[in-house]
Amino acid sequence: MEQEDPDVYVHVVEKREDGIVVRGAKVSQSGAIGSHETLVIATMGMRQGEEDFAVAFAVPNGTEGLTYICQYTPFTAERELSPDVKYLGNPLYGQRETCIMVFDNVFIPWEHVFMCGEAKYSGRLVARFAKTHRMNCGGACKVGFADLIIGATQLAAEFSGVQKAPHIVEKMTDMIRINETARACTIAAALKGHEEPAGSGFFQPDDIFGNAAKLTIADGFWDILKWAGDIGGGMAVTMPSELELENPETAHYVRKFMKASAPAEQRLRIAKFIQNWCAGLHGAGTWHGAGSPMAQKMALYALTNFEEKKSLARSLAGLREE
Amino acid sequence: MEQEDPDVYVHVVEKREDGIVVRGAKVSQSGAIGSHETLVIATMGMRQGEEDFAVAFAVPNGTEGLTYICQYTPFTAERELSPDVKYLGNPLYGQRETCIMVFDNVFIPWEHVFMCGEAKYSGRLVARFAKTHRMNCGGACKVGFADLIIGATQLAAEFSGVQKAPHIVEKMTDMIRINETARACTIAAALKGHEEPAGSGFFQPDDIFGNAAKLTIADGFWDILKWAGDIGGGMAVTMPSELELENPETAHYVRKFMKASAPAEQRLRIAKFIQNWCAGLHGAGTWHGAGSPMAQKMALYALTNFEEKKSLARSLAGLREE
Amino acid sequence: MEQEDPDVYVHVVEKREDGIVVRGAKVSQSGAIGSHETLVIATMGMRQGEEDFAVAFAVPNGTEGLTYICQYTPFTAERELSPDVKYLGNPLYGQRETCIMVFDNVFIPWEHVFMCGEAKYSGRLVARFAKTHRMNCGGACKVGFADLIIGATQLAAEFSGVQKAPHIVEKMTDMIRINETARACTIAAALKGHEEPAGSGFFQPDDIFGNAAKLTIADGFWDILKWAGDIGGGMAVTMPSELELENPETAHYVRKFMKASAPAEQRLRIAKFIQNWCAGLHGAGTWHGAGSPMAQKMALYALTNFEEKKSLARSLAGLREE
Amino acid sequence: MEQEDPDVYVHVVEKREDGIVVRGAKVSQSGAIGSHETLVIATMGMRQGEEDFAVAFAVPNGTEGLTYICQYTPFTAERELSPDVKYLGNPLYGQRETCIMVFDNVFIPWEHVFMCGEAKYSGRLVARFAKTHRMNCGGACKVGFADLIIGATQLAAEFSGVQKAPHIVEKMTDMIRINETARACTIAAALKGHEEPAGSGFFQPDDIFGNAAKLTIADGFWDILKWAGDIGGGMAVTMPSELELENPETAHYVRKFMKASAPAEQRLRIAKFIQNWCAGLHGAGTWHGAGSPMAQKMALYALTNFEEKKSLARSLAGLREE
Repeated sequence: MEQEDPDVYVHVVEKREDGIVVRGAKVSQSGAIGSHETLVIATMGMRQGEEDFAVAFAVPNGTEGLTYICQYTPFTAERELSPDVKYLGNPLYGQRETCIMVFDNVFIPWEHVFMCGEAKYSGRLVARFAKTHRMNCGGACKVGFADLIIGATQLAAEFSGVQKAPHIVEKMTDMIRINETARACTIAAALKGHEEPAGSGFFQPDDIFGNAAKLTIADGFWDILKWAGDIGGGMAVTMPSELELENPETAHYVRKFMKASAPAEQRLRIAKFIQNWCAGLHGAGTWHGAGSPMAQKMALYALTNFEEKKSLARSLAGLREE
Repeated sequence: MEQEDPDVYVHVVEKREDGIVVRGAKVSQSGAIGSHETLVIATMGMRQGEEDFAVAFAVPNGTEGLTYICQYTPFTAERELSPDVKYLGNPLYGQRETCIMVFDNVFIPWEHVFMCGEAKYSGRLVARFAKTHRMNCGGACKVGFADLIIGATQLAAEFSGVQKAPHIVEKMTDMIRINETARACTIAAALKGHEEPAGSGFFQPDDIFGNAAKLTIADGFWDILKWAGDIGGGMAVTMPSELELENPETAHYVRKFMKASAPAEQRLRIAKFIQNWCAGLHGAGTWHGAGSPMAQKMALYALTNFEEKKSLARSLAGLREE
Repeated sequence: MEQEDPDVYVHVVEKREDGIVVRGAKVSQSGAIGSHETLVIATMGMRQGEEDFAVAFAVPNGTEGLTYICQYTPFTAERELSPDVKYLGNPLYGQRETCIMVFDNVFIPWEHVFMCGEAKYSGRLVARFAKTHRMNCGGACKVGFADLIIGATQLAAEFSGVQKAPHIVEKMTDMIRINETARACTIAAALKGHEEPAGSGFFQPDDIFGNAAKLTIADGFWDILKWAGDIGGGMAVTMPSELELENPETAHYVRKFMKASAPAEQRLRIAKFIQNWCAGLHGAGTWHGAGSPMAQKMALYALTNFEEKKSLARSLAGLREE
Repeated sequence: MEQEDPDVYVHVVEKREDGIVVRGAKVSQSGAIGSHETLVIATMGMRQGEEDFAVAFAVPNGTEGLTYICQYTPFTAERELSPDVKYLGNPLYGQRETCIMVFDNVFIPWEHVFMCGEAKYSGRLVARFAKTHRMNCGGACKVGFADLIIGATQLAAEFSGVQKAPHIVEKMTDMIRINETARACTIAAALKGHEEPAGSGFFQPDDIFGNAAKLTIADGFWDILKWAGDIGGGMAVTMPSELELENPETAHYVRKFMKASAPAEQRLRIAKFIQNWCAGLHGAGTWHGAGSPMAQKMALYALTNFEEKKSLARSLAGLREE
């Protein structure tokens, strides 16, 4: 961890009788601004000499010295200008606010400190978090998203009257295939979980299947968005505002020309929902949630028992062990 | 063309001595609002009895009875609220305004009418337009976009200091591979073009290679965006506004925590450029520009000389023709 | 089931007091020639009027009227000519003999008949067989094959001294990723199995995950073979016979020029093992074992609860049910 | 080039007044055994101190000291046992014999020596060979193969009566799409070729498009084989020998049960042709012909003008050059 500026990672700058003082930042913290309290852990396993960075604690929103710098995207602007959330594509759950949390000498009382200097355990803590997060964020979370996207895409196809065309059925099936595959990986990760440490009563997901879940969804979610955009049609990225339906100069045109097997209102509403996905923040976000795919690939390679597989191959090929 | 409402497609409602009167709409007209004049042709080949729909003409922007209903997206909102275009991801060319053009009894003088009732030629006209459009819009146009995206992604990797990591090099190479493949299809389509009709001096691109260009880019551009988002990092979809650099409360934090191998300003600027692509309108738009991929697949299948290939296979397999 | 020749499918031609007489054929019966007894069931669900085809029974190998017409492939020829099985790529388990079983008036005693005329249950019987077979043959079986292939490919890389090259590690990881994904689908299919019918004590795999397993492996096994061939190198398809090592004129050359990080003997042996996979019968066979991928796609689409997903999407988009 | 055994690469061991004496081996030489003469060039660019390896010459088959060690595969065995070549899958052109050429003190007269010690030019010679070979072997050659495979697969579909099923049409179209894309890359490589060196009258293919051709076909040919196996059906890998049609005990059964929309003879013949591809040597061979895909990826990356693309992106993002 040879970095020029020690403040990049959160670390302890003072130990007091009643607690610790921390400095540094946590970037890409999705949802933190909306939480009552945030659990902070080290970013990676720390080594000897890096004890100050081996820290874990809870901090309530609003604590002195803590600043949230929120993301700003086209979707932020749209929300600001919209007279009603119903005109946004994903009105209730589409606001996925990510922020940078800056810790500028923030005091954390001892009762909220869970790790402080135990460098040798920090890697294990991060690994356990990753295990759970890859199964959940990589698997279960996107599987839920995809259920919505599949439902919306099927509606869009029905609204256009094309849901029975063989190539539409084929693409819908591919969306389902990917999603059920990711769901299966998540379920296998959960069901093949291990008690860790033995006797503790705490279970962790199986790491191989958790990484398989995240890698399946990393590419797979992108493909699901692709087909949503393909089936959703050009409409999903070229549509006028639903507010035109209240515009006396254009409402009758929009009603007339956006109508198909369903009225314009319904087609616009569901196209907007699809737009929020296929031209939104979640696609690229999925790559990095729970770590970049390269991290999962490295984990998967490291977890593989090559000796056992090599031995099986040798045995069948009639090649004795050296 | 059995449709309930004849107005959905543009058609002639009156023929006068000095010209024609047309009604109907053209949806998903990218850039039309910014053009001096728009060339309108039939949507598909028309059959006997559909002469009124076999129409082609030019119409200047501002003609009476012509209404443009523009798209409205998160990017429209962001542009409205931004104090300077430089804060937008693709400030100069990112505004790709698509609209619905409504023709409500629009008069077109005869000197601007190119086809009117010649149903048997309408299919050929559409096919010739498609040929050119698939080579250009499917091939050349996105190849140029992708050059920009590849350049920006390489910059983002360099700004983060990861440009030499083997998996980054691998992904950059895959982006290049796809783009050069699409470029090759476009070049082959142009160079193997045919004079059509013979002796006319007008050349049309080769249809097989033009369709191959569009199909290569349909999936390929989506993959290029995927890797841009992967290499661009979570930052591309979670970054704060560049305006924070002018905010006295947060500027020093952003400068400190967004710095890597390049200063925060540069990283934010290029991440925003990448955001405009990997979380923008172009990905899904690419599917449908120049027709949906299914249209190109049908064309490719129809253009294939199966008899010749079957005959070659028969001959090598020693199977005489029936 | 409108077929010209009723004999194509196995059916009952006579019911006697002591049993039934059947005619017809079963094609692509892998392993049947080596079995003591074969369980025969109808090929598909039969309808009213097709009772003669709604049949299920057990038949011992060697029964009068039963003929096995075995497959003949290049691998059959190689086995015939080889002085020792050790020179074959997959000596112990590589002989995957498929045959056509012809039933020419074969008598089956009643105690070996399990279904005879119950057309309405025949579809359910086939579906239950498919459920199990897709989980096993599509999932578990190929996952075991792939463990061997991954082991052999890693050995080949080590024998050539290239196992640490980043692109080799990347491809090995992709092989593992696919295989663990298929394994997860199989495990999820088994663990989420249902008692069918309720109270019977018989459990069937979950059908969605079983189909996901087969579809994951259909494309995935082909990709695993691809990387085995890529990493195995040209050697896997251009190598001389291991018997050259006993040829006084060539043995010293082969030993000298086929040596790398491992002696020629070992490299040839493992390259031959890889050849058996990447230039063998299993790749194409995997497509059709347990039914063609199209059958699984149709099943997956039919099993999907679209109404629930549509309802979720409607609800989030604020679109009331019609 | 730090190798233990200098004999692995072909090199000069003696320079005489009338010629040179060379030692070493060339592995994976496809077709060499059937050629009158072989052109030998260095394997890679040689550096100072490696002059003995910077050699290029022509050698006639049958020269003293030259030994060919041929490959031996299941297909070799099948050919040996077959009473007539017509029973082999690809009787006329399926024999793609690869061998190891061993040079054990082979004398090459000066008039057949084209390079001898000019280490600094050896890299350029190899690069020029690679350029042509990637366009031809990667592009044109496999495109021709694929025309045959597409023809045979369409015949197989027609023989089974399934050629109009939408998923068959879709897969046939995908085979065509890949093949026409590779053809376009080859054509673009040829048409955008450069005179090299200027004024010489010798033209070399464009290197970027040549590498794109090879990389398109590396993955693409494998996919084409996949769909041939899928559409060809289980039959392609489980079929009995065509010789059964001459077997009095089984001929009538085979005729009866292998018949579909075409007679058994035709179905068997074309299935055997497909078997030769989808369960044959060409798939894995394609990866390494003209160098492994990794070599082309490295070339493509090295050939890319990143500075130009970065500059374009900077300019559009409003980011001044440093």
